[in-house]
Amino acid sequence: MQKKTVLMIANLDTRGSEFAEFKNLVIGQGLDALIMDVSMELDPPIRGDITCQEVAAAGGLSIEEVRTQYTAQRHISTDCMVRGGSVLAATLFEQGKVHGVFGAGGATATIIATSIMKTLPFGVPKVMATPIAAIGCYVNLYVGTQDITMVNTVVDVIGMNPMLRRSLTNAVGGICGMVRMFPGIEGLQREQNTGKPLIGVTCFGLAERSAERVLTRLEAAGFQPVAFHAQGKGDRAMDELIRKGVVQGVVDLVPRGLGEELLGGDGAAGTDRVSAAVETGIPMVLAPGGFDQVSVGAQPEWESRFGERSFIVIDEARIEIRTSVEECSRIAKLLAIRLNRATAPVRVLVPIGGLSSLDRPGRALYGPEENARLTRELLQDLADPSIVETLPFNLYDPGFGEACAEAFFDVWVRSGRPLPVVDHASSID
Amino acid sequence: MQKKTVLMIANLDTRGSEFAEFKNLVIGQGLDALIMDVSMELDPPIRGDITCQEVAAAGGLSIEEVRTQYTAQRHISTDCMVRGGSVLAATLFEQGKVHGVFGAGGATATIIATSIMKTLPFGVPKVMATPIAAIGCYVNLYVGTQDITMVNTVVDVIGMNPMLRRSLTNAVGGICGMVRMFPGIEGLQREQNTGKPLIGVTCFGLAERSAERVLTRLEAAGFQPVAFHAQGKGDRAMDELIRKGVVQGVVDLVPRGLGEELLGGDGAAGTDRVSAAVETGIPMVLAPGGFDQVSVGAQPEWESRFGERSFIVIDEARIEIRTSVEECSRIAKLLAIRLNRATAPVRVLVPIGGLSSLDRPGRALYGPEENARLTRELLQDLADPSIVETLPFNLYDPGFGEACAEAFFDVWVRSGRPLPVVDHASSID
Repeated sequence: MQKKTVLMIANLDTRGSEFAEFKNLVIGQGLDALIMDVSMELDPPIRGDITCQEVAAAGGLSIEEVRTQYTAQRHISTDCMVRGGSVLAATLFEQGKVHGVFGAGGATATIIATSIMKTLPFGVPKVMATPIAAIGCYVNLYVGTQDITMVNTVVDVIGMNPMLRRSLTNAVGGICGMVRMFPGIEGLQREQNTGKPLIGVTCFGLAERSAERVLTRLEAAGFQPVAFHAQGKGDRAMDELIRKGVVQGVVDLVPRGLGEELLGGDGAAGTDRVSAAVETGIPMVLAPGGFDQVSVGAQPEWESRFGERSFIVIDEARIEIRTSVEECSRIAKLLAIRLNRATAPVRVLVPIGGLSSLDRPGRALYGPEENARLTRELLQDLADPSIVETLPFNLYDPGFGEACAEAFFDVWVRSGRPLPVVDHASSID
Repeated sequence: MQKKTVLMIANLDTRGSEFAEFKNLVIGQGLDALIMDVSMELDPPIRGDITCQEVAAAGGLSIEEVRTQYTAQRHISTDCMVRGGSVLAATLFEQGKVHGVFGAGGATATIIATSIMKTLPFGVPKVMATPIAAIGCYVNLYVGTQDITMVNTVVDVIGMNPMLRRSLTNAVGGICGMVRMFPGIEGLQREQNTGKPLIGVTCFGLAERSAERVLTRLEAAGFQPVAFHAQGKGDRAMDELIRKGVVQGVVDLVPRGLGEELLGGDGAAGTDRVSAAVETGIPMVLAPGGFDQVSVGAQPEWESRFGERSFIVIDEARIEIRTSVEECSRIAKLLAIRLNRATAPVRVLVPIGGLSSLDRPGRALYGPEENARLTRELLQDLADPSIVETLPFNLYDPGFGEACAEAFFDVWVRSGRPLPVVDHASSID
């Protein structure tokens, strides 16, 4: 049997000896390794298993052009190597020749390696070792919505020293361990495609009990529910999977990323949250979960912006400010604009007992007046206000999750889709 | 021989069955696992190898108090479990009973697990699987300056489904692979303590050739140089290691984090960059590397703030704005204030050919006038202007690195430290 193989994305021109050492480390773990050289600057001292000439050519330029542009307009060279590397990596994966990807280096190496990683399917092991793994603004871009693992090397990937060697040894251990777990492309497809309709459920801790109920009910009904953390990345990942046709229905319990984007919160989820479901016409149930708050823990200036409002400090990273009447109104207006474009059945369930577990009598974000304005505005702006119903629950209550699940079965059936066949035999174990 | 063991930090109250499954996965890899239960909410359905009662008690509270505070003032509970978990984890490591740490979960699980991880030494495998791994503001806090590996689960860690199972399986594979590479606490200490003085060298890509020369020269002279990426985290990590006595001398080629902090750049490195070396009295050579620019790639509003300035787009994450005369003056003033507190020998080498490879005739950030102001201000404000010398190089030039290395040998000797004994035999291989 062919050994499982790590694809190592390397800039051999400046990190040749390091990658040669770490290729041997992979081999010492009983696996194999292929080095893809994405050097853009110099003629590398050793030859990659896939050379920088081959990568450049697959990207549409000669290596000489890449080297010329490297100092002049580096993004042209970078884009070329990403394009070429992605094409070649995809082929190697489809042919079953590699089973995971590893990258190591500074900012330029990171953008190239992670961009190539992003073109490979979910579940394929992807490990990037870099000193910029702990720098938020880069992580936002380089990891994005993908399953890329970032190893913080702490020290820079230049020269060799005991700290760097330990960091990279751990990182190589990490990719080897992941690759050992990899079932192959076909195994991955078999495992991921259960044959059940995959339903996205947005949630966060402040909706946990109802989210759990939604998951349980959907699963019992033969769906494959998957929860997405509504912190600005998980919710976006769900929207991407909707557009790819992977997620086929939505219980958008916590569309707060729309409000966070509007109000400049830490959980901002881009400018088209909720739109993916609307535009692809999949059945959707939506609750205004999390619109009671805006997250500002990462914003040093939050007190000057919001200091006079009700707020709660959950921990050093999470400070939640109560949204105002005016903000709730703006959120509802924007939500209505997006929902009004829906073609498939949509239902909006409003928990009048509060929009998170913190929005209850006696809790920090209690705001019935603000919430009432949100509901009123929604009813006013929605083309079909009859899709809204109010329920005597808090967002967190299992009973609310129950109602959302029931509503989901309804929109699913009304959209003309057959309910899944429940395999009772396999559900008893 | 005792099997290598993964310490799994778990909230068994809500994730009991998942952790039981993944403990078995570790065992299936030929390793062992210990579950440390940090549950704060409910009575867990299964018992941890280290129970939540034990963790709470080690943190100074009863589990009942932790559960009461969980809804009222969660940070009190969180702090207690972090304190207790850290004490118990440290003991297990010192006793050689565990060889790596694994955590999985949402925001609260992440803050607890990564806070415990941070108390363990550099080099000990640390893997956190969470959907907030790609959220910059959290990564800034949770990873910080430490060697914590973040696995982005993409989907939320709630319920179980094929996507989550694949994510967590990969993550478990990652920690197992890292633990296989772990040489034990004593092996780690032996490997990290080479007996040579460890010298920190700040750098970035725009100083690469001179940084390489500094590293080569220091290494040849019997020092153990380590490069730190001056992007706001690596440079801070170096300062922390200076304060811990690990880093014993500095070539601060790129103290740009001071300017980034002052001007609100992406590479801001806190309010005491450079001070660690000054306050601990270790020998230092400093160059004003990177003060020609401020990084704004992560700031959507950069054009309105800096649109009229010279700038360069390196890639989607990196946009560098030329600093103005006035900004250069402010940077120099602040730098002088910090350097004036030095007790050990310091030398400041100014490359008058430019403060980065982009600050040269014909390149985007060329600014001789701005740089001249920086030098003038430094000479004016430093208590001892004779520590400054100007050199006819660009920061990037190997010749400049050469000069920095020579200056470092000088401050090292003048501080009364003996030059290392060079082992010529071992340097020939």
